[in-house]
Amino acid sequence: MAFVKKPVTGMKDILPEEMQVRDYVQNVIKETYRSFGFTPIETPCMENISNLSSKQGGENEKLIFKILKRGEKLKLETAECEADLVDNGLRYDLTVPLARFYSNNSNNLPSPFKALQIGNVWRADRPQRGRYRQFMQCDIDILGEPSNLAEIELILATTTTLGKIGFKNFEIRINERRILRAMAKYSGFSEETFDKVCIILDKMDKIGQEGVAEELQKEGFSEESVKKYLDLFELTGSTESKIEKLCDKLSAAGCLEEEVKSSLLEIVTSVEATKAAEFKMVFDPTLVRGMGYYTGTIFEIAMPEFGGSCGGGGRYDKMIGNFTGNDVPACGFSIGFERIILLLLESGFKVPTQPKKIAYLIEKNYPADKLCEVIQKAGEERKAGKQVLVTRMNKNKKFQKEKLSAEGYEEFEEFFNR
Amino acid sequence: MAFVKKPVTGMKDILPEEMQVRDYVQNVIKETYRSFGFTPIETPCMENISNLSSKQGGENEKLIFKILKRGEKLKLETAECEADLVDNGLRYDLTVPLARFYSNNSNNLPSPFKALQIGNVWRADRPQRGRYRQFMQCDIDILGEPSNLAEIELILATTTTLGKIGFKNFEIRINERRILRAMAKYSGFSEETFDKVCIILDKMDKIGQEGVAEELQKEGFSEESVKKYLDLFELTGSTESKIEKLCDKLSAAGCLEEEVKSSLLEIVTSVEATKAAEFKMVFDPTLVRGMGYYTGTIFEIAMPEFGGSCGGGGRYDKMIGNFTGNDVPACGFSIGFERIILLLLESGFKVPTQPKKIAYLIEKNYPADKLCEVIQKAGEERKAGKQVLVTRMNKNKKFQKEKLSAEGYEEFEEFFNR
Repeated sequence: MAFVKKPVTGMKDILPEEMQVRDYVQNVIKETYRSFGFTPIETPCMENISNLSSKQGGENEKLIFKILKRGEKLKLETAECEADLVDNGLRYDLTVPLARFYSNNSNNLPSPFKALQIGNVWRADRPQRGRYRQFMQCDIDILGEPSNLAEIELILATTTTLGKIGFKNFEIRINERRILRAMAKYSGFSEETFDKVCIILDKMDKIGQEGVAEELQKEGFSEESVKKYLDLFELTGSTESKIEKLCDKLSAAGCLEEEVKSSLLEIVTSVEATKAAEFKMVFDPTLVRGMGYYTGTIFEIAMPEFGGSCGGGGRYDKMIGNFTGNDVPACGFSIGFERIILLLLESGFKVPTQPKKIAYLIEKNYPADKLCEVIQKAGEERKAGKQVLVTRMNKNKKFQKEKLSAEGYEEFEEFFNR
Repeated sequence: MAFVKKPVTGMKDILPEEMQVRDYVQNVIKETYRSFGFTPIETPCMENISNLSSKQGGENEKLIFKILKRGEKLKLETAECEADLVDNGLRYDLTVPLARFYSNNSNNLPSPFKALQIGNVWRADRPQRGRYRQFMQCDIDILGEPSNLAEIELILATTTTLGKIGFKNFEIRINERRILRAMAKYSGFSEETFDKVCIILDKMDKIGQEGVAEELQKEGFSEESVKKYLDLFELTGSTESKIEKLCDKLSAAGCLEEEVKSSLLEIVTSVEATKAAEFKMVFDPTLVRGMGYYTGTIFEIAMPEFGGSCGGGGRYDKMIGNFTGNDVPACGFSIGFERIILLLLESGFKVPTQPKKIAYLIEKNYPADKLCEVIQKAGEERKAGKQVLVTRMNKNKKFQKEKLSAEGYEEFEEFFNR
């Protein structure tokens, strides 16, 4: 069979220059999250196909790379459908594996459990610029913490990390699934239409209020209900006063528990008062977040440099219970690792505090006994924290040094056989 | 479908305690290899199935996890064999992907190119203790360096890393494929029986000289040839004098180029003179290394604590040419990452210089305004390099503190709503 030079469709090779930025960002992420008490865990990249097909994964379940059964288990002759051929698949996110991990290991885990996962996931999406079929996700989750301390810690940990990497002037948009439900109820939309309403509301930033109104009416909602619904989004003032006004109105109509307002306000004020990066907390009642498993607070990172979201998360108190039968309060925040890297690369980001890079060029036939001295010297420089390349001198030394300079080598030493 | 709590057969969840050791070891590896001028790269976990079926991978090619074609490409009705269903597979090592990476990107890479890869590979081996179907490999390779500077740098980089992790009194066993060939030729074994002879020689540590003699004779080699062959292994003295004696004998008979001896001696003496860890270079003429693609020097790490090899490598100057048609001199060294981790965990290894761990226990209904002060305080401790867990106080506070102590929390602060 022919040798294929290119990576598999939709996936990419990562070259040294990008790897350096990725490694640096990963280290900042790990170090910062650890200081908040998150502990790294890892799960296999493969999951049982039935875990991946639980409906918790929404649209992502259509994008699974499936693994062929092996050996005796594979009965090609009698196979009638895909399911007969497949027992495992590559994970499409880190949340389903986390739920499985927690149910498999909870006896050996503290409560609350603060998990950090950095790992690749795979989705057979249509390939497009900047989106790959293998990409890294970076999730923190707190399992077993019912109070909003989870939200506060997740938002502070994530924003502190982003600040350390060098991002500023971004926003954390926040909303509550229960507010979304209450708004729909307040406007007279029936319970079972909630998902449909959310899908339309989610388009607000693209099609505007008028577009949303149009689509809602097309779905058969009355003009009056739609007007009542859209009027709810007319809010002015500070983030805190917006939350207060909307929640008070919904609570007064008996559509929302009082507790939602105070909890959301507590999150916003605590984060604002203690934040360690330059960003703003913004209440955004149009924020929906795609995944159906969210039950409470939802949030998203919005970067001025970047159109879409650079990460997000929320509370999903029912998901682990859907898998295992026992509900566990859970809340998570995922950084859009690949988008962060893309932004940094496009802005010409340079990794700070790099070691000094020195190249030793050694002439061909340099005597063995003297070579030891050169290597010894390299060893001492390396011990002192420098990066030393020991390499043969090329015939075209000038060109060789030019290429090494481009790679960041600042100092050259030459060793001749004389 | 039912939810499966266990990881996929033969794979494992990695819990915080092990992850801490893995992360530490990975950091030491990356830092040390970088100081030697190796640059990290990454390739997708999936490769085109034809690249994985090139015969370069030996037995591993039988252990591939294959990925089902997707969408229109999958024609189950007309599929007659596995190949009709599959276009990609999970990589079984990092060497085949490196060869593809190099041929795809060589225009943008320096020469020589010193690559560091740390990544998962998958093999559908029979599951057994300590061996998993997903495991991490950690490879360094130098591409484009024909001289033994490559071997010297690879062995020094790897042993310096092992030393920094804390290993000592290990051995680097070294041999040369060309010596293996010359020994066979010297004994009168014909060229085409070389692979068979190597497979039998490889069993020396298990079945001893007598066992090897028996198996060779069973294969039809004459008693005289077998005796001549085995006599070659009777060597005494230092590593250097063993190399000299054997090579001189083989060269005198016209079976070995003179150059092999001087090159091997240069590697051994240079490494011994400049090494930064406690280990010995040992010449082992019975060392074979499984993979058929090696063309010159081969080496292996032998740990006193561990029966088998903890890593190895060698020169494979023809492999990239077999893929691409253009030979590129290449030499690599792979650390048995999972074995190293297993050894460390079994010896009760503790990660050095851990941050101080403090837990803040906050009573339920602690007032929001005072909570800000607590979080602020946590932020300052985190900035000062400490690891601070902010969590709700449980009803059974004593039990909670016991569990946290077991996780390494040394200091507790309690915040009451009074």
